[in-house]
Amino acid sequence: VKLICDLDTGIDDTLALAYILASIDQKTADGSNVDLIGVTGTFGNVTTAQGVRNDLAVLDFFGHPEVPVYAGRDHALGMRSFEVSPGSAFIHGRNGLGDIDIPDSTRAISDLSAEEFMIQSARQYGHDLVILATGAFTTVASALQKNPQMASYVGKIVMMGAAVTTCGSVNAWTEANVGQDPEAADIIFKSGAPLFVVGRDVTARTRITRQQADTWGAQGTERGKFLSSILDRYLDAYAVNFPALHGSFLPDPLAAAVALDPTLVQTIPLWLRVDLAGPTRGRTIGDPDRLREPNPTTQVSVLCDIPRFMANFMSRMTALAATK
Amino acid sequence: VKLICDLDTGIDDTLALAYILASIDQKTADGSNVDLIGVTGTFGNVTTAQGVRNDLAVLDFFGHPEVPVYAGRDHALGMRSFEVSPGSAFIHGRNGLGDIDIPDSTRAISDLSAEEFMIQSARQYGHDLVILATGAFTTVASALQKNPQMASYVGKIVMMGAAVTTCGSVNAWTEANVGQDPEAADIIFKSGAPLFVVGRDVTARTRITRQQADTWGAQGTERGKFLSSILDRYLDAYAVNFPALHGSFLPDPLAAAVALDPTLVQTIPLWLRVDLAGPTRGRTIGDPDRLREPNPTTQVSVLCDIPRFMANFMSRMTALAATK
Repeated sequence: VKLICDLDTGIDDTLALAYILASIDQKTADGSNVDLIGVTGTFGNVTTAQGVRNDLAVLDFFGHPEVPVYAGRDHALGMRSFEVSPGSAFIHGRNGLGDIDIPDSTRAISDLSAEEFMIQSARQYGHDLVILATGAFTTVASALQKNPQMASYVGKIVMMGAAVTTCGSVNAWTEANVGQDPEAADIIFKSGAPLFVVGRDVTARTRITRQQADTWGAQGTERGKFLSSILDRYLDAYAVNFPALHGSFLPDPLAAAVALDPTLVQTIPLWLRVDLAGPTRGRTIGDPDRLREPNPTTQVSVLCDIPRFMANFMSRMTALAATK
Repeated sequence: VKLICDLDTGIDDTLALAYILASIDQKTADGSNVDLIGVTGTFGNVTTAQGVRNDLAVLDFFGHPEVPVYAGRDHALGMRSFEVSPGSAFIHGRNGLGDIDIPDSTRAISDLSAEEFMIQSARQYGHDLVILATGAFTTVASALQKNPQMASYVGKIVMMGAAVTTCGSVNAWTEANVGQDPEAADIIFKSGAPLFVVGRDVTARTRITRQQADTWGAQGTERGKFLSSILDRYLDAYAVNFPALHGSFLPDPLAAAVALDPTLVQTIPLWLRVDLAGPTRGRTIGDPDRLREPNPTTQVSVLCDIPRFMANFMSRMTALAATK
């Protein structure tokens, strides 16, 4: 599988990216190898500029300076600019990595725009291409708008976003990534591209504890200490936001794992739309006008094999933490 | 199976009841016979008083004067009274039967309250008891409040209501039966009783046309003419409310069919709650606080074998229309 990660990097994006890097020598569920052909930056947890800075730094830190990074859109389709919300800064720190420092990369981002990279990759790799999108969906939507045919080339777009059968994270009906740019999410849902939605329906079933986070740092390596430290900051924020959880969710890592192994989740086929007006603006829901339309191209994850995901995630991350 | 139908009779409730009567000599999916032990009246499409009048009349008209009728609650838990909405009156007519007349029954309703009848039946029949609820859920909720142990006795409560993965019918987030009494629905969802939810997620995938409706009247019988006539009025209302559908949904008949054959739908296990406050009051959604709680007692129907349902529904209704 040829994989593009479209990230707003972010602590859980970093964990997702690390998990993907830890999976590069592993086989995916369909027996292919994981080939991370590029990381594209979007906004959400951080600005696009901070995100691509983090992407380069994280890739280099984990020994993958060969993976190119592309900058995507830096604000929502219907907006003129983007600012990190206080809530995001509280969770992810000022630098997106819980204010833990790793060196800047000496590399630069690519000249090609993230949209162009997605479009060219879809042309080049067709059904082998999987796009994992874990931030605002603006760049993916822009690529699909620029090249609508991409919807029929691309193998799959795995979206960490939406909350169809449960409540949102921004409010009772809006999930954060959809909420960053509801119009963009709606464009993707209506594009006809093969979509695999990994939303709050399943991500809010995951849970990692401080004890589990500490196992990486206990390896005594720089990489292990970094992974434990950023997750520790993430857990600090969750202790305030979700005191009863005694841990944190792993939204982006679950989406990354599902991108490599869709059998982790049970899905229902459903045409989705985003409410763009009215009091529930930002809500993702089954499109009532398309309920009788056959063969939805969207699969919505509704159940998840959490123990299998956690076992797989912990073993790969622990192995990665042991490398250096 | 021992079946109680809790109806707000209503055109589609009448079709559901007729379908159940047409199924009495048939086997259910689990190989048992259908034993309709009683009909209980609730409010929604009509007042409870009009509903039980219609129940008695419809039962007698279709040759089942042996089935007792019990009156249930006549207004929502949080309200002092109930009035039929203009929208309901437009769809179901002033008498709930599209203003088609059938004779009043000479029978009276039972002295026992609907709640007591449900509680006693649950004690008597335990897991053999199925309650099919297609109107406001107030009476079922009251029974569960009076006797919380009923939640562990009862075989199953099949609820025609809610809209989890798609939009509501009252507004973008509220389905009509839940909207009539959100508190009652919430009590049932949190009761721990085995629930089978047949909501807009699947009912809005059904469709019956005027041509199909006419086949019953074409039998030339009184029963066939009555069934075609009431469905004709229902279709008139749908032609105004859903002009693109060129037909009507069959919400209550689908729920009735699922009560006898749950294999018609694909479900997901999910603890539900109703939003009781805020702008989305009336919305039914997966309870975010219970996503990691194992073994939900609620199954939410998300997909449906519509062709099999329609074939079964049409053949039984046509056979019933041919009887007299």
